[in-house]
Amino acid sequence: MSEASDALFKKLAAEIGIDFSQEVQSMHRYELAIGRDREVHVSGHLPRLRGAVAVSGRIGAGVTLEEARRAARLGTIRALAALRQHLGSLSRVGQVLRLTVYLQGAEGFTQHAQVADAASDLLHAVLQDAAGHARTVVGVHQLPENAAVQVDLVVAAGEPEAGYSTF
Amino acid sequence: MSEASDALFKKLAAEIGIDFSQEVQSMHRYELAIGRDREVHVSGHLPRLRGAVAVSGRIGAGVTLEEARRAARLGTIRALAALRQHLGSLSRVGQVLRLTVYLQGAEGFTQHAQVADAASDLLHAVLQDAAGHARTVVGVHQLPENAAVQVDLVVAAGEPEAGYSTF
Amino acid sequence: MSEASDALFKKLAAEIGIDFSQEVQSMHRYELAIGRDREVHVSGHLPRLRGAVAVSGRIGAGVTLEEARRAARLGTIRALAALRQHLGSLSRVGQVLRLTVYLQGAEGFTQHAQVADAASDLLHAVLQDAAGHARTVVGVHQLPENAAVQVDLVVAAGEPEAGYSTF
Repeated sequence: MSEASDALFKKLAAEIGIDFSQEVQSMHRYELAIGRDREVHVSGHLPRLRGAVAVSGRIGAGVTLEEARRAARLGTIRALAALRQHLGSLSRVGQVLRLTVYLQGAEGFTQHAQVADAASDLLHAVLQDAAGHARTVVGVHQLPENAAVQVDLVVAAGEPEAGYSTF
Repeated sequence: MSEASDALFKKLAAEIGIDFSQEVQSMHRYELAIGRDREVHVSGHLPRLRGAVAVSGRIGAGVTLEEARRAARLGTIRALAALRQHLGSLSRVGQVLRLTVYLQGAEGFTQHAQVADAASDLLHAVLQDAAGHARTVVGVHQLPENAAVQVDLVVAAGEPEAGYSTF
Repeated sequence: MSEASDALFKKLAAEIGIDFSQEVQSMHRYELAIGRDREVHVSGHLPRLRGAVAVSGRIGAGVTLEEARRAARLGTIRALAALRQHLGSLSRVGQVLRLTVYLQGAEGFTQHAQVADAASDLLHAVLQDAAGHARTVVGVHQLPENAAVQVDLVVAAGEPEAGYSTF
């Protein structure tokens, strides 16, 4: 965990072209992030820019690996935005527990890990010591609105001084 | 959380045509719901009626959006039945943490959110203040027994007076 | 929970042909298992033997049901290896909370439960009283490296004397 997380988040969000002043609002009957007893669940986030899905289609057929990696970063930064809004500050993230990356791959696509690494790298860049996470990545049939990638998170919140058990 | 949750559940289950007196039993080597330390995981539930999958096939090719929404409600009410059986009463639900909706969509199907909204709406109708949840919805290749929809939940259990942190 | 879990794990791992002395290392920027506050998330594990995916392709088209069940066992034993490495001993598993099985099925494949049962059975064989779990199984479009099956876990850690609430 780092007190610098919010500053890093804003810097990376700006680089990626996202203005979060009005970005993260649920249009449906669910919450973008919700938590109880220090565990926060972050909803599946699509690679949206100004409301629209910025990277849609199948990776390996229309969507390049690099575009897919950008989509993973966009989805992740939106997930972090929802998390930040919920917690007040990303400095309250104690530990990311799980990152799940769902992607739309073309027939024969196997570079799931390279796409998911873009999401993992962004978590590390923003959350630093709190970024370590278990990860699952799967290629699904279709994502909402034909998005190329969807990202969700499970996060443990907590003060830094609480430390965390590595068992 | 509402003490009325069990009554609302029974009313909605009856409307949807489910008799839960013998409905929710695992036929395999897993539990329909399991919990520890106040977090309950509910298994993936299919839209079954009297043991058989009631809505099967691909949404957008044989299965209409409205049938898919019914499937989402059936899966969700079965998930709630399992949860109720595990907790003794739905009034012990403190907060739904995550709803995951898996669906079988036809090529080009993009109305994932409309299907998942049927599940979210049912959670709100039954659990009221405890119903807010993070959500992920994905279109998968195939579900068990060719079901159109599958629903699982992560739930925080707890007495209402414990309140819950919104961080 | 059983103190015999580690011995059972080693026995079953040997039977299945896995030497875990150097097996479980993350090659990417995520952890194979991570935990905090007694909840451990185990990453998605593929059916690897000596680094390579041992069972790849679609179940029902090239991959038989029995091979898929072997893949589920391989993925599960690797997930247990990661968990064991993280906890120090599988005797520290208090309760498996969730098993998710992702599989690559051919068109028309519906025997998801039979594949997932192989994973559930292995959890029971190794972890015994701590093995009961909620389960979700889905047929996805593609798994990393064309693996036939992928397995992930959520686990509650804890001393046996702590007992656990069944609510």
